[in-house]
Amino acid sequence: MSLLGKTIARIQPSDESLRSQAKQRLDLLTMPHWALGRLMDLAIDLAGMTGSMKPAVDKRVVVTMAGDHGVTAEGVSKYPKEVTVQMVHNFLQGGAGINAISRVVNADVIVVDMGVAGEISGVSGNPSFLSRKIALGTKNMAVGPAMTRDEAAKAVQAGIEVALELCFNYNLFGTGDMGIGNTTPSSAIVAAITGAPPEQVTGRGTGLDDEQFKSKVSVIERILEVNRPDAKDPWDLLSKVGGFEIAGIAGLILGAASMRKPVLIDGFISTAGALIAQGLCPASADYMISAHRSVEQGHRIALDHLKKQPLLDLDMRLGEGTGAALAMSLVEAAVRILVEVATFEEASVSQADK
Amino acid sequence: MSLLGKTIARIQPSDESLRSQAKQRLDLLTMPHWALGRLMDLAIDLAGMTGSMKPAVDKRVVVTMAGDHGVTAEGVSKYPKEVTVQMVHNFLQGGAGINAISRVVNADVIVVDMGVAGEISGVSGNPSFLSRKIALGTKNMAVGPAMTRDEAAKAVQAGIEVALELCFNYNLFGTGDMGIGNTTPSSAIVAAITGAPPEQVTGRGTGLDDEQFKSKVSVIERILEVNRPDAKDPWDLLSKVGGFEIAGIAGLILGAASMRKPVLIDGFISTAGALIAQGLCPASADYMISAHRSVEQGHRIALDHLKKQPLLDLDMRLGEGTGAALAMSLVEAAVRILVEVATFEEASVSQADK
Repeated sequence: MSLLGKTIARIQPSDESLRSQAKQRLDLLTMPHWALGRLMDLAIDLAGMTGSMKPAVDKRVVVTMAGDHGVTAEGVSKYPKEVTVQMVHNFLQGGAGINAISRVVNADVIVVDMGVAGEISGVSGNPSFLSRKIALGTKNMAVGPAMTRDEAAKAVQAGIEVALELCFNYNLFGTGDMGIGNTTPSSAIVAAITGAPPEQVTGRGTGLDDEQFKSKVSVIERILEVNRPDAKDPWDLLSKVGGFEIAGIAGLILGAASMRKPVLIDGFISTAGALIAQGLCPASADYMISAHRSVEQGHRIALDHLKKQPLLDLDMRLGEGTGAALAMSLVEAAVRILVEVATFEEASVSQADK
Repeated sequence: MSLLGKTIARIQPSDESLRSQAKQRLDLLTMPHWALGRLMDLAIDLAGMTGSMKPAVDKRVVVTMAGDHGVTAEGVSKYPKEVTVQMVHNFLQGGAGINAISRVVNADVIVVDMGVAGEISGVSGNPSFLSRKIALGTKNMAVGPAMTRDEAAKAVQAGIEVALELCFNYNLFGTGDMGIGNTTPSSAIVAAITGAPPEQVTGRGTGLDDEQFKSKVSVIERILEVNRPDAKDPWDLLSKVGGFEIAGIAGLILGAASMRKPVLIDGFISTAGALIAQGLCPASADYMISAHRSVEQGHRIALDHLKKQPLLDLDMRLGEGTGAALAMSLVEAAVRILVEVATFEEASVSQADK
């Protein structure tokens, strides 16, 4: 069996017995019932994912998958393509948004070149960098498929391998992305899967004006017409209208889920990857935590389809994994509530009148 | 001049020049413009509060003010009054929600007895406990004023003193409360100040059913009829329909603001305290950060009046300072973005086309 097949076969649904044990304990904590709201819901999820009443979430990594997109030839981004390579260097020098936010939560940042359109120099031996380059960027999906089926499979497998390697050192994952133009494939994937019209799942990306926005919507309409991706077939979707970093994110989620490690899903691009992972293995969604709601308007529709409610809503739209990193402190809080807060009995506190 | 007068005289509005310096730097960071959204707005606020381009927020404390309320005689809470004392012990043993969440953000928890209706035993020499007891709980405000004007002044002054002492060791404050029955004075304060009808600012507190809720609304209506507090006079409000912990929170905010230290405002009760602080000194609002939106329905109205948008919205309604503690990691993230993220020039990254 292929690594993909083995990985999918290993992914178990969330552990119902642990979920119910966690709920039982949380019901008895010294506070009005469920007074810590969504953190308590999250604590149940974490117990079910990890199969433990003391979920381990102290070894944290944000995996920032980078790739380029041939569709930038259609003018869908305000930034030149070379920014992808430049930002990879910025990540490795510690100067990007994801580096700053990861320091808040003691998370390492691992950058993976899934398909950047250029060589990344001076990274030999750098433990924060992994090269899993499938190609020098995707092809222009406005005129044909972004990649071959074989490339799509290789990219997902590379993401799985990255997750399995990192599982030796980490127990809490965050997804991240970098790739000029990558809101376009994400919008195409979300439109195809949810059936929402392109103008509802297209955002301003890195800051388009009204005219540029209209042009981006029409590019996405063209992408869907030219490729006619099959929404029920994740491989068809990924190869025709995906991206290498999106495939890598899908693989990362599958790999982490197969090892029962929680994965914080960052913003719009990561959620497109999560939808692909869910398509390949519905049970993988049990290991996904939506970190935040992006400003990108399609993100809400994508999260509704995934049936996930985001933890944070702070008008962010950077990607890189910044939302995932930020939400790691909420995950730690949820675990500490489950593990460290006393019950009424333990603390000799009187209960409410019935 | 009294300590209160001196403190208020010292409170300076936010530093406009630092705010604009911070904005200038944030405009140039290696990301699409303002892509970290509200964290960047917060970074500007922090620069203005602290008067620094490197705001110090690494020494953190949550001050949980405790007090009892004579109005519990009207049946406004499902929990018996002795829970206030029991929970103070739970805080000091480290078993409460606030202890668990403070550990996530490396914040100390300091519990202040502002007016608990019982002795707190076994706390002599405990550095996490401060006794500033004004009285053994307030009087029943459904039949007359909760406290005298002199008691109100003493309680605010005690809060200021606590802040000034703690400023030697801490640079980031969070407010917190504990007091069975204290959503009732908070609702009364918010109704009086905002003019909102009692049923719109009354919540279910620790879990009232429909009938208990109606009864609580009618108690608050009675409180306002009996006392007729002057919304324009914070001392009249505080003494007639306040609480000792609410007064302490107001004082804490004023003290911290006078030393230019940011204060995270927790939920509904803390926001009632913040409204009193704002009434005593409007510029103190420049040092307040709204940590989260509580489930208590009056909280939204109170925050609108304070013109603050909360950072988190996680269906929490515990108080104790839990929301304030949780938001401390967002404050750290905002500072790190300002201080640590490279500009386009520093990182040699190409900028967007105009």
